[in-house]
Amino acid sequence: MKKIINNADNFVMESIEGLVLSYPETYKFSNITKKVLTRTNKASNKVGLVSGGGSGHLPLFTGYIGEGLLDSCAIGNVFASPSVDDISSAIKEANLGKGVLCIYGNYGGDVMNFDMASEMLEMENIKVESIVVADDVASASKEEKEKRRGVTGILYVFKIAGAMAETGADFDEVKRIAIKTNQNIRTMGIALTPTILPQAGKPTFEIDNDEMEIGMGIHGEPGIRRGKLKSADEITQELSDKILDDINLSSGDEVSVLINSLGATPHEELFITANKFNNILKEKGIINKKSYVGRYATSMEMAGMSITILKLDSELEKLLLDRANCPFWF
Amino acid sequence: MKKIINNADNFVMESIEGLVLSYPETYKFSNITKKVLTRTNKASNKVGLVSGGGSGHLPLFTGYIGEGLLDSCAIGNVFASPSVDDISSAIKEANLGKGVLCIYGNYGGDVMNFDMASEMLEMENIKVESIVVADDVASASKEEKEKRRGVTGILYVFKIAGAMAETGADFDEVKRIAIKTNQNIRTMGIALTPTILPQAGKPTFEIDNDEMEIGMGIHGEPGIRRGKLKSADEITQELSDKILDDINLSSGDEVSVLINSLGATPHEELFITANKFNNILKEKGIINKKSYVGRYATSMEMAGMSITILKLDSELEKLLLDRANCPFWF
Repeated sequence: MKKIINNADNFVMESIEGLVLSYPETYKFSNITKKVLTRTNKASNKVGLVSGGGSGHLPLFTGYIGEGLLDSCAIGNVFASPSVDDISSAIKEANLGKGVLCIYGNYGGDVMNFDMASEMLEMENIKVESIVVADDVASASKEEKEKRRGVTGILYVFKIAGAMAETGADFDEVKRIAIKTNQNIRTMGIALTPTILPQAGKPTFEIDNDEMEIGMGIHGEPGIRRGKLKSADEITQELSDKILDDINLSSGDEVSVLINSLGATPHEELFITANKFNNILKEKGIINKKSYVGRYATSMEMAGMSITILKLDSELEKLLLDRANCPFWF
Repeated sequence: MKKIINNADNFVMESIEGLVLSYPETYKFSNITKKVLTRTNKASNKVGLVSGGGSGHLPLFTGYIGEGLLDSCAIGNVFASPSVDDISSAIKEANLGKGVLCIYGNYGGDVMNFDMASEMLEMENIKVESIVVADDVASASKEEKEKRRGVTGILYVFKIAGAMAETGADFDEVKRIAIKTNQNIRTMGIALTPTILPQAGKPTFEIDNDEMEIGMGIHGEPGIRRGKLKSADEITQELSDKILDDINLSSGDEVSVLINSLGATPHEELFITANKFNNILKEKGIINKKSYVGRYATSMEMAGMSITILKLDSELEKLLLDRANCPFWF
């Protein structure tokens, strides 16, 4: 295990302490617990936005706290859900009197713990609802969309709901735009190598040196198929076929594209993918209005990448392009 | 070789085409050659800033074109200098009538080719001078500073000279601030794994599974010593000792800190490093005014990281914090 770490047990807390020391203008520990971060400058008079999930995915989840994005975040251990107590604390921190919307990925533990925390806080008369993000087209069929895993597309829900909340919009309006964004995102990816969990000290899965797994989840969940590593163009075509088959796009439609590295895959390879994908879109007359290419949702040092598409309309585009203030969002 | 690529011979050009297709609002191919990128919206009435170097380091060099940063960039093959002709074209693109300052790292091929291009263009009455960045403290002694390699610290020279040029300052003023920034940066790093050059198809160096190399260059150039992989705190202390021994800092001094991944090393490990390094600075009474933690200058999928320090004064701080408009600079 070749990692720059101290003690595997302190991996999460030392990395979060480093995040706060590096960007004290953005992130602050909650007064309640160090497993929750909040904005350094708390907002006022807006709908609160909370996320949370397992560690090992930076910048996801905690990195996306900031003006125009999240208000607070609950931090789990590596690839493990945050506790009910920590989620409750995150919701309390984000509660500014206009209700709190929780946005998280569709994983059993996260759903259960966010649900329990929300029920507890409703008894304290805090309005809390949840958006469960489910954008990974490889993880369930179109007919069972709600069973899909939540992956990189969650970024778009953070950004667009965040921008709407910042305008002072009421709870129902923020919830409406978050639901709409969640309906308009599709993601699919491939994995080339596993990651190593610091505490376990061994790879999350085995894969041969000449193999890739299409549709694998960011924790190593099984994909659609495993096969020989193909060319960038072939991989991009396969991902593109699945994504575009799932979302209803016609010539003239506008989209945003997010090409994400799971960690080790470098920018050069992401841009080779972007080259092919943008050409596929052009051939179909689909207009890419805004790209994001980089490491947005990772599995530490896993090699692999994903393509996310967000179908835009003028409302979504405006909110997407509104200014956010966070070290991980341009 | 587990890479998402098509043909190794097209690796550089396809990645640059993907960059331009992804961010057409920022990057544009030169009309003279596809081995040069320029700003999409050319500036006017400012000193032109040019860089260039080998590919395989994205976002370096080409990614740092943008308002408040570079005007144009010459693109070499992977880990190879750009040609004299391409550098000449980049300088011509950046020439807006107030002179052109070239900023590049201290590598033999780059220095030779930039020198030749500059001489040719001076005969055409274009004012061209160069800043050769040499920030890697591991690569030569304090007494032979000018022999040091240029690594991640070059980012600070781009940013600060870029901000000064944007104010409309004259050539001498932009050159003065670039020299001052270059004098105020120090970098040192470690490498844990090699990268694989697409065309060669084999690792750039060999290193055992439990080893690290302190001070290794970003192309795999020999470092100060090779040894067993140590803890994050021990590594950070060793880099910190070398860097702080080389730059004259006292309690109350202000700095900016850039912690850079060479590619595969994830954010979690960078922040564990940041945690220790910020605590070392605090103990010494040195004030970190602005952090950058991420992938700024890479070697594709190499694992490893570096720490860069920039000693600030009020002039440098203001220019550092001025707005830039580029997908890779916050």
